[in-house]
Amino acid sequence: MASPEQAQQASPELFFATVNAYQRTEALRAAIELDLFSALGAGPRTAAALGERCSASERGIRILCDYLVVHGFLTKEGNRYANTPDSAVFLDRKSAAYLGSAINFILSPMLTDGFKNLAAAVRKGGTVMGEHGTLAPEHPVWVEFARSMAPMTTIPSAAIARLMRLEPGRKHRVLDIAAGHGKFGIAFAREYPNVEIVAQDWPNVLAVARENARAAGIEERFRTLPGSAFDVDYGSGYDLVLLTNFLHHFDPETCERLLRKARAALAPGARAATLEFVPNEDRVSPPVPATFSLMMLGSTPKGDAYTFPELERMFRNAGFARSELHALPPTFQSVVISYS
Amino acid sequence: MASPEQAQQASPELFFATVNAYQRTEALRAAIELDLFSALGAGPRTAAALGERCSASERGIRILCDYLVVHGFLTKEGNRYANTPDSAVFLDRKSAAYLGSAINFILSPMLTDGFKNLAAAVRKGGTVMGEHGTLAPEHPVWVEFARSMAPMTTIPSAAIARLMRLEPGRKHRVLDIAAGHGKFGIAFAREYPNVEIVAQDWPNVLAVARENARAAGIEERFRTLPGSAFDVDYGSGYDLVLLTNFLHHFDPETCERLLRKARAALAPGARAATLEFVPNEDRVSPPVPATFSLMMLGSTPKGDAYTFPELERMFRNAGFARSELHALPPTFQSVVISYS
Repeated sequence: MASPEQAQQASPELFFATVNAYQRTEALRAAIELDLFSALGAGPRTAAALGERCSASERGIRILCDYLVVHGFLTKEGNRYANTPDSAVFLDRKSAAYLGSAINFILSPMLTDGFKNLAAAVRKGGTVMGEHGTLAPEHPVWVEFARSMAPMTTIPSAAIARLMRLEPGRKHRVLDIAAGHGKFGIAFAREYPNVEIVAQDWPNVLAVARENARAAGIEERFRTLPGSAFDVDYGSGYDLVLLTNFLHHFDPETCERLLRKARAALAPGARAATLEFVPNEDRVSPPVPATFSLMMLGSTPKGDAYTFPELERMFRNAGFARSELHALPPTFQSVVISYS
Repeated sequence: MASPEQAQQASPELFFATVNAYQRTEALRAAIELDLFSALGAGPRTAAALGERCSASERGIRILCDYLVVHGFLTKEGNRYANTPDSAVFLDRKSAAYLGSAINFILSPMLTDGFKNLAAAVRKGGTVMGEHGTLAPEHPVWVEFARSMAPMTTIPSAAIARLMRLEPGRKHRVLDIAAGHGKFGIAFAREYPNVEIVAQDWPNVLAVARENARAAGIEERFRTLPGSAFDVDYGSGYDLVLLTNFLHHFDPETCERLLRKARAALAPGARAATLEFVPNEDRVSPPVPATFSLMMLGSTPKGDAYTFPELERMFRNAGFARSELHALPPTFQSVVISYS
């Protein structure tokens, strides 16, 4: 219970800001749908001028832009709005780092529906969306993922490829498990001319990965392995296995089963590189990996954001000798390198 | 367009935090539905103990609580969670200042549906929910409002009653327009024993106001005037008219029409007290009143959060001599006192 002194000094500000936080999501989504940030690419504009460019009412644009100023996406001087530096980089369609398409995945009903009755998911301890949530075989959400999220991998995929320091002269075979858009494997093929990629995923998803391999000019070193990561035959003798944003969908037992299978496909002394949201052991820091657990609670039966000791134990139980944790700034993710 | 230097220093953190902001809303809603904060009223508890008290899985509670720690609603020491001082005051059901019921109104589909296609509302310049949005006659959302939001008025209603300094000896008649839960008028009746209240609203809403007047022990000085604020006969000779959270639903022309009608009901020299979200003239500060405009864009055809000069002009056009602005800390609202 609160003391009278606490009650006097208390503020409901956080409560109201949080209750209404869904409006932040919707305001950003609306601005991306209206392509507002691209309309500001050439410089500051008034609500009237933006309304004309975005085919929207001046009044609606004025209210939306003021909201986006308050929340840090735009600046306002007099009655003219402008992109912040971050908005210019990530939200102007003409920018190479454009992230706006990510909302097609992150805000797809397949993910957001899992939050419509979050209390039920907390009671149950997992998603209330069907038996498997987003993990049902050939779920179309992963095609949307492959199409929408590829632009976001530019920085981390190149960073992992460099981090793994493959020997330049030698041929390497890399198995990319649950490859999705294929961009992580493709980054290795681009960084190392002797690397050959085998990309595993659902067939509908691999179609997107093949397009990306072709666009990157590495298709002759890019093979596909269609099917479930748990059932398909990986083959053997790989020098590296990539597990990017995959383990968080499963419980530790399922992860260990997969890791045993992955280890069996490796050549002696080869490595696994795992990209994950890895919270500290307190599970409440840093904010991005710590809050990722809730995404898994809403959308999967048993997924989680695992701490490094938890991941280390899974790899050890699966037969790996040791694991190392590497931060991957400026991303909010980490790479675990495990030695077979 | 972003320069290469901007691109190098840019961070997508705000983008991702905002895209996923809807999860903050849903996490808080789930915690209130599970009555998690009340379960922490007696002191810190583990996820396992909370799971038992809230009839929920330990895993679900752990993930939800960690999320609420990151977002400032709980603290964590070892594996035990505790309420922050603000959560103890506002979110423990046993607290007199409990606000949790406010989600029944603030997160009712009648308000949140207006944000499901916010881009369409921006294009149109007003709500896309039916012809009148939440302003349709006898809309049930206002009964929910009257029931859910009453606890939030304790501080502002007492503050307005004191601010208006009615002469203690004399009889006063107060007209409470769009009274809702009736709490603002009731606060005057409690502060001043010679005050008589006439509360106007839809009949279904006034039933709630009458309950509240009875509970406050002032029902013999509380009359009701059922009907539309725009059509019903107010009577005349009032010493004060209250307009609490009403003008923001309408455009300035409609406000002026209402204010002329209100002024005609006042005794000579009497006053109007208007409680509103009043942003500064830049319309992007302070955050709470500035962002309130978007709520009106989503849920009403033409509503807005008006600046003081805009409100002043409406009152002047309606025949009032002058208006004064009074901040009402610790609330995020202001009172405009207008002299007839």
